[in-house]
Amino acid sequence: MVKFEGYEFTDGGVCAAKGFKASGVIAGIKAGNTTKRDLALISCDVRCKAAALFTTNKVKGAPIIVSREHLEDGFAQAVIVNSGNANTCNANGIEIAEQMCALAAEELGIAPEDILVGSTGVIGQKLSIEPIKAVMPALLSGLSEKNSSLACEAIMTTDTRKKELAVEFEIDGKKCHLGGISKGSGMINPNMATMLAFITTDVAINGELLEKALRKVNSLTYNMVSVDGDTSTNDTLFLMSSGLAENSEIICEDKNYEIFENALYAVMMNLARETARDGEGATKLIECVVEGAKTEEIAKTVAKSVISSSLVKAALFAADANWGRILCAIGYADADFDIEKVSVDLASTKGTIPVCRNGAGVDFSEETAKEILSEEEIKILVDLHDGNESAIAWGCDLTFDYVKINAEYRT
Amino acid sequence: MVKFEGYEFTDGGVCAAKGFKASGVIAGIKAGNTTKRDLALISCDVRCKAAALFTTNKVKGAPIIVSREHLEDGFAQAVIVNSGNANTCNANGIEIAEQMCALAAEELGIAPEDILVGSTGVIGQKLSIEPIKAVMPALLSGLSEKNSSLACEAIMTTDTRKKELAVEFEIDGKKCHLGGISKGSGMINPNMATMLAFITTDVAINGELLEKALRKVNSLTYNMVSVDGDTSTNDTLFLMSSGLAENSEIICEDKNYEIFENALYAVMMNLARETARDGEGATKLIECVVEGAKTEEIAKTVAKSVISSSLVKAALFAADANWGRILCAIGYADADFDIEKVSVDLASTKGTIPVCRNGAGVDFSEETAKEILSEEEIKILVDLHDGNESAIAWGCDLTFDYVKINAEYRT
Repeated sequence: MVKFEGYEFTDGGVCAAKGFKASGVIAGIKAGNTTKRDLALISCDVRCKAAALFTTNKVKGAPIIVSREHLEDGFAQAVIVNSGNANTCNANGIEIAEQMCALAAEELGIAPEDILVGSTGVIGQKLSIEPIKAVMPALLSGLSEKNSSLACEAIMTTDTRKKELAVEFEIDGKKCHLGGISKGSGMINPNMATMLAFITTDVAINGELLEKALRKVNSLTYNMVSVDGDTSTNDTLFLMSSGLAENSEIICEDKNYEIFENALYAVMMNLARETARDGEGATKLIECVVEGAKTEEIAKTVAKSVISSSLVKAALFAADANWGRILCAIGYADADFDIEKVSVDLASTKGTIPVCRNGAGVDFSEETAKEILSEEEIKILVDLHDGNESAIAWGCDLTFDYVKINAEYRT
Repeated sequence: MVKFEGYEFTDGGVCAAKGFKASGVIAGIKAGNTTKRDLALISCDVRCKAAALFTTNKVKGAPIIVSREHLEDGFAQAVIVNSGNANTCNANGIEIAEQMCALAAEELGIAPEDILVGSTGVIGQKLSIEPIKAVMPALLSGLSEKNSSLACEAIMTTDTRKKELAVEFEIDGKKCHLGGISKGSGMINPNMATMLAFITTDVAINGELLEKALRKVNSLTYNMVSVDGDTSTNDTLFLMSSGLAENSEIICEDKNYEIFENALYAVMMNLARETARDGEGATKLIECVVEGAKTEEIAKTVAKSVISSSLVKAALFAADANWGRILCAIGYADADFDIEKVSVDLASTKGTIPVCRNGAGVDFSEETAKEILSEEEIKILVDLHDGNESAIAWGCDLTFDYVKINAEYRT
């Protein structure tokens, strides 16, 4: 977990912010599932200002169509999400997504238009409303400030770790909170949005700024993660603010906005990073830091090219300092820089080793390199020596288990 | 092998065209190699008109720099190539590449500027000239019209099959020939150029048209192949014409030019297709045919997106008709079309099965789908129902062996 000064990491996940409760139950949505929670509900005591980002894939899950409509007024009060079925490319998908909202609305006694909905799992298989309907009372009665982790479990598919996090900080002398849960392990190459992530806060902030912060922080966090280069059809990121922290509402980009934005970065960056670490079949987190770029865009493009390369990923699985593949991936990045100025170092908690200077190899100890690369978190440090902008991207290694998981996922 | 009317496939590979000879020997370039041919020479009796395309990667192998210089006058007479070391990102790489040309020139009694050079293998390890120097006499004495396959063997790295092909056809009542050899199995995502491919012909054709045909056919063949999305630093494609077929020189885009261009397509398309089939660790060739596009560019983008998807590739390894992943990859392709008009069929010699109509799933027999997908050549047929343009792309499945090969390649 990357620390941020002035922000205390705290428990509670998506329920850390005042007013939010969560629940997660077993509905048996995927045939044969009787043991894994697969239906989650996040609900707030009050109507929230809400912002969202969705996949840029032309194929969009039905829940995205419905949520976007429900968000038109900028408000929402609850989110219902299932795993085990993406409710995408189904003839009656929109109808089912609307029924999910209606069921939750009825139980909560609020308007269906204040419910957002998400689904994740296999694409193109019909989703039946029956198992969801059957467990609605249990889902509602499970709602509690203590149940963030049950909701987090319920949205997992091939994930092996829960991604759940919250921070506490101060605005106007008031204790504020921002936290979230997130899922995603395969089909991860978010583009202007993300897999599924639900972030809540009690900070009072105006709707436009809420969305602005979400867009900016997303572009630096989830959008900088890739597991397999496949941009999902269901990427969804919701941010809801209850305003119950009682700070005076943030209405311009002042110091308080900056505190809020940093809190959002602290949570989303760590959740995104955990998503990379938990990439399907992964044994290592790969973090590529690109510095010395002429523009931030160039730094982002190069960083993402490196962590997306199948050959770099496979080499790191073997803890092999095959820096030629890293330079190759830097070289085919569609960005402007001089390859003959580029330097590359490899690093982990075991130390740092230079492998390339001015675009050419330097002598290094293979033994030391192996020791560094055998750790579970690897840093690839690239300096373009061409300016002052930087970026970070997160990925994972490519392993036998990635193939195993994806050759067996559906059948 | 895809057949073309009026073009007879014939033996001889890169030596099928009049005037060309080839040779391949064991130089022991990679430490420990004493059994695999790793140095090739292709030589012509006369100076040839020549055209080339090289990688768009900013990191370029030293042989590319040297060959480009030697090709400035549009002529070449021989090509020397080694495998086992890419001679890339080495401080003295250009010097070594020039020495390779000088050694071959001396033995052949021609100018070093008429020699082209190529290297393939590990990036960033120094290439010693000594083992090459030691076998030059043997390399020269091996030159023969019968030795295309020895040269083909000498340029292989992780390739498991030789890619070697030639066609015979008529222009002006004269028998003409066009053939080539090609290598490439990993780091395959050619962009404006290709892995290593050497094409020869005896057709008399002017230099500009030679290059024009090469560019066009390359954009439809090698550029439509991807094994792993990694664009190599050493992609090189040479086309040499001896003019010894004695047809009257082709000087405009007439009927004879068309015959020549089609011959070039027949050879390059089949070589490119074989490259996809022999992708690292592959068990299946995947061919994605996109029709009904508004522009050829759209069709190309969609076809390439589908064959590049890790998730589609892993599903096909398991013969799993997970068409949702195909639709997902179509959906994130950066191209203009209406996803709700898209249809997808899966096909092989065992039959054809519709899996998606109007962007949504249709019922199909999983058993029949499994049977179709268990073949070694799979076709994914996409119709965008949005125009008359089409394109084909070639890829392969993603397997345990891909990871194995690339986690073990260097060390």
